[in-house]
Amino acid sequence: MTVTQIDVPKGLAGVVVTDTALGDVRGGEGFYHYRQFSAVELAASRSFEDVWHLMFHGELPDAKASAAFADRVAELRPLPGIVRDLLPELARAGGTAGPLAGLRTALALAGAAHGFRPVYDLTTAERAEDALTACALVPTLLTALHRLAHGLEPVEPRADLPHAANYLYMLTGREPEPRHARAVERYLVSTIDHGFNASTFTARVIASAGADVAACLTGAIGALSGPLHGGAPSRALDTLDAIGTPERADAWVREQVHAGRRIMGFGHPVYRTEDPRSRMLKEIALELGGPLVDLAVGVEDRVETVLAELKPGRELHTNVEYYAGVVMELCGLPREMFTPTFASARVVGWSANVLEQAEDSKIIRPAARYVGPPPPQPVPAAGPSL
Amino acid sequence: MTVTQIDVPKGLAGVVVTDTALGDVRGGEGFYHYRQFSAVELAASRSFEDVWHLMFHGELPDAKASAAFADRVAELRPLPGIVRDLLPELARAGGTAGPLAGLRTALALAGAAHGFRPVYDLTTAERAEDALTACALVPTLLTALHRLAHGLEPVEPRADLPHAANYLYMLTGREPEPRHARAVERYLVSTIDHGFNASTFTARVIASAGADVAACLTGAIGALSGPLHGGAPSRALDTLDAIGTPERADAWVREQVHAGRRIMGFGHPVYRTEDPRSRMLKEIALELGGPLVDLAVGVEDRVETVLAELKPGRELHTNVEYYAGVVMELCGLPREMFTPTFASARVVGWSANVLEQAEDSKIIRPAARYVGPPPPQPVPAAGPSL
Repeated sequence: MTVTQIDVPKGLAGVVVTDTALGDVRGGEGFYHYRQFSAVELAASRSFEDVWHLMFHGELPDAKASAAFADRVAELRPLPGIVRDLLPELARAGGTAGPLAGLRTALALAGAAHGFRPVYDLTTAERAEDALTACALVPTLLTALHRLAHGLEPVEPRADLPHAANYLYMLTGREPEPRHARAVERYLVSTIDHGFNASTFTARVIASAGADVAACLTGAIGALSGPLHGGAPSRALDTLDAIGTPERADAWVREQVHAGRRIMGFGHPVYRTEDPRSRMLKEIALELGGPLVDLAVGVEDRVETVLAELKPGRELHTNVEYYAGVVMELCGLPREMFTPTFASARVVGWSANVLEQAEDSKIIRPAARYVGPPPPQPVPAAGPSL
Repeated sequence: MTVTQIDVPKGLAGVVVTDTALGDVRGGEGFYHYRQFSAVELAASRSFEDVWHLMFHGELPDAKASAAFADRVAELRPLPGIVRDLLPELARAGGTAGPLAGLRTALALAGAAHGFRPVYDLTTAERAEDALTACALVPTLLTALHRLAHGLEPVEPRADLPHAANYLYMLTGREPEPRHARAVERYLVSTIDHGFNASTFTARVIASAGADVAACLTGAIGALSGPLHGGAPSRALDTLDAIGTPERADAWVREQVHAGRRIMGFGHPVYRTEDPRSRMLKEIALELGGPLVDLAVGVEDRVETVLAELKPGRELHTNVEYYAGVVMELCGLPREMFTPTFASARVVGWSANVLEQAEDSKIIRPAARYVGPPPPQPVPAAGPSL
C-alpha cells in the first residue's frame, strides 16, 4: 500500500469517524442530547413524532407542522401487500429467534417492495421519504411478527392513534391506558439515539457506500442483534426475578460479587455518573408504582450499598436496562419485545444518521494490517483429482 | 466524553482497524495475496473450493482434504424448504432491483431458517459451519432469484459438479463447457478477497458485536449494493458497446476526456501499476478469443495512448471491471449477474473476515464529534393538540 497506515486504539475507541449535528453523550456529566436539546427534557415534554421530526429535519415542529408530520407518518404504517402476505412465513422461519431476527428479513423485503433506491442516487427529500417509510413500518413489522409467533393475527395499525399508543395497540389489540402509552412514549423518545455505537456506525458505513435505506437499517439491526452490542433490558428483569424480594438482595449481591459475576442492569461503559435515562425511567416507574417498583428500588439500594462496601471508589449505578425493563413490564410489554421495542425507537436515530451520512460523499473504508507469513510463497500443486 | 477523541483522515483512510492474516493488496507492486500465496497464482492452479478452504482454515488442503471439503460444501447447496417456497415471492418483490436486492432478504431468511446463532455464542468450529452453509447457499440463491425474475424455474444444484461449474449450471440449466467453467472459476478465485473495503469492513463491524453470520453477510451485501462501493463490471462492457468498433475508440476517448467524464473500467484507487486481476482476466479473455476480445484489446490500447497524451504522467490502466465483464460475457453470464457473481465469490472473503473478527472480543465502535449548536437549550413547549 502506498497509503500511510495509522495506528489507533483497538476497536477504533475514541477515533472520530464523523462530525455530527445529531447529538452526543457527555459521560462525565450524566447528560445526553439530541441536537441542541436535552434528550430527557424532550422525553418529558414532546411527542415521539416531534422528536423524530427534530432528528430528521433539524428542528422541533410548531403545532401545525407537528400535526402534519404525525399524520404523514401514521399513513405510512401499513405494510406493503407482499410483506403482509409473507409475514406469517417469515415469523415461522424465525422460529424462536424472536421478532428482531424476523425484522431484518421483513425490512429488507419491505425496502424492495417499496422500491427504495440507493441514497447516493436520491435527493435529500427523497432519502428522507424512504427513511420515514422504513421507520413507520418497523413498529408494524415487530408487533405483527410477535403476534404471529404466538399464533395471533396481526393487528392493523390505526392512523388515529399517536405513535406510542398505536405501538401498544398493535401489540395487544387494545387501546392502552394513557399513562402506559405516555410512559412508553417517554422511553421511546429517550431511546432514539445515544451517541455513537456499533449499530449506528454500521448504518453509517453502509450509507457511506451509497446503499438504500433498508440496506443501512438491516445492517444496523444485525449489529444490534450481537450480544456484545449491549442493551438487553430483559436481563435486568431476570435479575429481579432471581432475587425475588428486597430482603434477599443483600445476600444475593454479595454472592454475585464474590463469584466475580457481572450484575445485569448495573454499570455503563460511558457514564461515570448516574445514567440520565435510568434516572428518568426510575421516575416513570415510581409514578406507575407497584410491588415490582418497590423490589427494583430495594435491590438498587442494596446493590449500590454492597458494591460501595466491597468495591469502594467504583461508581456503579443502574444503567438504562434496569428501569427500562421495569417500565416496559409495568406497561404490559412482554419481555421478548423489550429489545425489539428499543429497536423500534432506535431506528429513527439510525435513520437520522443515515440521512446525515448520505450528505457526505466519502466512503468509510479503513485499513487492515497483514500480519501473516510473508508472501508470495510458491503455491503447492493440487493433488490428483479423485 | 471522558475518552480522548482522536482525529484521523476522513473516511478512516489508512486507519488500521485490525490485524489480519487473510491477505493484503500491495498497490505499488501490482500484487495481492490470500494468506501467504499470490491470489493470481492460486487462481491459475487451484480450485475455488481449495482456496475457500485456505481462507477459512488457513491452509491449502491436500488431495484427500480437498475432496472431502468439496463434497461437504456441495451438500450444503440446496435451499432450506421455507426459503425455496418463498423465493418466487421474494423475486417478485424485488421487481427490477436485481438478484442482489433479493439476496439480502433471502440470506437473512436462510440464516433464520438454519437457526444461525450469534458468533459470540459459538465455538470456532460452529461459526465456520454456519459460514460454510451461508457461502454454499449464496450461488443457489442468486441463480434461482435470477431465473425466477425471468419467469424460469430455478435449477436444483448438483452435488457432482465443482463449485464454478455448478454455478453456471444452476444459472442456465446446462452443463457449461469446461473452458467456460474454468474461466469463471479463475475469476471467482481472484474475487474472493481484495484488501479492506467497505463491505468487508461492514461484515467485521457486525461480527464484532457478536451477531450471527447471516447478519454480518446481509450487512456486507447491503454495503456492496451502494454505488460508491465500486465494482460494476457491466458498466465497462456498456462502454465497449457504446464505442462499437476499435476504430471509433480514439475519437470516443478524446471526447470523454475533453468532457471531463470518467471512463468506466479504467483507474483504481489503490493500484498505481496494472491491476493484477485485470492482467489475469485479459489473459483468460485472450484464451477464449473472439470479436469482443479484439474490441476490448483495441479500446484498451487507444484509451491508454490517448490518456498518456492528454494526461501525461498519470498511470491509468484497465481495472478489474474491464476484462471481468468481457470474460463473464464470453462465458454466457447475463450482465445483471455480473455483480451478483462477484458477490457469490466475495461472500467467502467476507465470511473469512467474520470468522477472524469473531476470535476477537473487542467491539468496533468509533466516536463522532458533535458540531451542532451547544446544548442544552430550553425545549420549546409543544403547541396545543389539534
